[in-house]
Amino acid sequence: MAVTEQATSTRAREAARVLASATTEEKDAALAAIADAIERRASRIIEQNAVDVEAAASERPAIVDRLTLDERRTAGLADAVRAVADLPDPCGSVIREMTLENGLRLTRHRVPLGVILVVYEARPNVTVDAAVLCLKAGNACILRGSRLARSTNEVLLDVVREGLADAGLPADAVQALPDDRAELARFVASPGAADVVIPRGGEELKHFLLETSRIPVLAAAGGNCHVYVDAAADPEKAVAITVNAKVQRPGVCNAAETVLVHRGRADLIPGLRSALEAEGVEVREDEEAWATEFLDLVIGLRVVDSLDDALDHIATYGTGHSEAIVTEDAAAADRFTREVDAAAVYVNASTRFTDGAEYGMGAEIGISTNRLHARGPLGLEELTTTKYVVIGDGQVRG
Amino acid sequence: MAVTEQATSTRAREAARVLASATTEEKDAALAAIADAIERRASRIIEQNAVDVEAAASERPAIVDRLTLDERRTAGLADAVRAVADLPDPCGSVIREMTLENGLRLTRHRVPLGVILVVYEARPNVTVDAAVLCLKAGNACILRGSRLARSTNEVLLDVVREGLADAGLPADAVQALPDDRAELARFVASPGAADVVIPRGGEELKHFLLETSRIPVLAAAGGNCHVYVDAAADPEKAVAITVNAKVQRPGVCNAAETVLVHRGRADLIPGLRSALEAEGVEVREDEEAWATEFLDLVIGLRVVDSLDDALDHIATYGTGHSEAIVTEDAAAADRFTREVDAAAVYVNASTRFTDGAEYGMGAEIGISTNRLHARGPLGLEELTTTKYVVIGDGQVRG
Repeated sequence: MAVTEQATSTRAREAARVLASATTEEKDAALAAIADAIERRASRIIEQNAVDVEAAASERPAIVDRLTLDERRTAGLADAVRAVADLPDPCGSVIREMTLENGLRLTRHRVPLGVILVVYEARPNVTVDAAVLCLKAGNACILRGSRLARSTNEVLLDVVREGLADAGLPADAVQALPDDRAELARFVASPGAADVVIPRGGEELKHFLLETSRIPVLAAAGGNCHVYVDAAADPEKAVAITVNAKVQRPGVCNAAETVLVHRGRADLIPGLRSALEAEGVEVREDEEAWATEFLDLVIGLRVVDSLDDALDHIATYGTGHSEAIVTEDAAAADRFTREVDAAAVYVNASTRFTDGAEYGMGAEIGISTNRLHARGPLGLEELTTTKYVVIGDGQVRG
Repeated sequence: MAVTEQATSTRAREAARVLASATTEEKDAALAAIADAIERRASRIIEQNAVDVEAAASERPAIVDRLTLDERRTAGLADAVRAVADLPDPCGSVIREMTLENGLRLTRHRVPLGVILVVYEARPNVTVDAAVLCLKAGNACILRGSRLARSTNEVLLDVVREGLADAGLPADAVQALPDDRAELARFVASPGAADVVIPRGGEELKHFLLETSRIPVLAAAGGNCHVYVDAAADPEKAVAITVNAKVQRPGVCNAAETVLVHRGRADLIPGLRSALEAEGVEVREDEEAWATEFLDLVIGLRVVDSLDDALDHIATYGTGHSEAIVTEDAAAADRFTREVDAAAVYVNASTRFTDGAEYGMGAEIGISTNRLHARGPLGLEELTTTKYVVIGDGQVRG
């Protein structure tokens, strides 16, 4: 790390130590102060955002909509902060509690993870959402946004830090890294610079981090998700779920990329195909399609001879994200949910439901297909670690 | 990876898929068969062990005792396997369960991690203990033992695999890597070769893995543990706990390396010093001592002016393993347990208690100071990940 990044990391560690001792009330007061600061600075935020929007209008018109902050959306940012303040604090909650034979009283409870680096694309709301989710769980965070939202991110960072300072918590609990790839590479090359990196959105950036980071990365390494239409599938559910899983938002990691159809339900293929094509989806049947995460209006199709073949296909091509079976056969559903190895497995429901808000977690900072630490949507609990506290009255080990 | 290691990893993945679907009864039957096989092959095990013991007698006499398997210890191996069979199966246990507003029924439950690489020193019992802990939690494992126990490990591996085959589970659920550093380096360079590496014992090997592995490492990165004797410390407890934390087993990661004494209890220093010296401990007061993990009969001593100074010292020099305060002051104990950032924090008890068996986890495969996934002793639960299972009747996302 260069001197600047080292300083960012050191300041984050110091702020994290303060935050770890902050009470729920203190943290919630800081979130309330951040929401107030957003409302107070709304016109300044909208003004700075206009700078980014103007530049993007010529350079990347496709992102203008999601980049834009108007009065309504700015008010929405403040509301989202207050919604996070209303979520239960994961810290302090007791996971295990017991008195050992020697009289030692052992408790294991949740404590903050420490310092979290969040890397994301040109979505200004993530600057605020990520910061407040980290704060609520008692963590310091380092934000690394997109060059295309630079002016917006700068003002939002100022506003968040102003809110923290207003509430008497260290402003350095939220800092930013420059939006430069080389600086990011240097930062993540140092294993102790942060405790975890969470990439949010942006496949290319995510792969870059998974490839280069010495800090653990929590991310969905891929989303080659399947819908398996079983021999005992209900026709209407099969079509509705496949279409929804593909088209409701094709560019995200929980969208389906291949539909597997049991030979015994091949009668559904023409109807399924026309329903997909009616939504503008191209259907491909080649082997290359099965291995491709299209993130677009393209879907692979394969006819399989059995549930076993479907399970083998998913074990071969799947990325362990979200997998669905459509069936009225309880035994087939049971085998599928037991044998498919993924973060989330669905019976008669769309893969698109893999999401923190849908799962009742209130909000998510990302989705992980890691097997270690957190698998699935990353909510507040996933931003914590644990601590054993052992209370004795002089016990020594014999 | 070379071809051989790639094949080991591939076979482990295939075996892991079978194991993930095995019932608790099937896994326990395999453990029983392994225990039986150990008893049946006892004389062969003792014979092969004698080869290693003879070689070690000239090369490394210090390890002969822990390397030796006689009849009693071999019977102990079988007993340890049966004790693991008696532990509750972590897989399948439900962590969260709820019905979402749209009627989806969501459960989150524990499932096996997958493939676990265990790297350890010349302790033949670890070959058996590590294998059966991994198996009980539904994981395939790859064992990498010491050259000094090569002959013993070979026969134990055969016996474990024989037990698996007797019970109808894949023998490849337990495999070994050659005891060659270069092969280990090649194996851990490939991020997907295993899901996690657990080093057990051997500081140098552990640091090598933490430095080089692209597979996540669960380990105690260091054990610079402290006993802080507060102004309100009970004199007897202070001496007993400090001495126990240092001398009960000085070579392990939860042994204390520095004692911090509040200036208000400096009166205890002469007694503390003579109690330590009576046990052969050398007491050092220089700054270098504070940063050193002696793993030997040496302890650092520092007088601090306040609880704050003790907390700062521990934040600076501690490695986040096990930290203890000796005090009769509840407020001081409370601040210490809240503010010290470590896997385990003790009040009026020895740091030596950080251990899976002591914590009622039945057994441990190691101890971790990681913040992600598992912090503290690694029991069966820590050898699992989770899966969301979502049951619907045709729900799609709107």
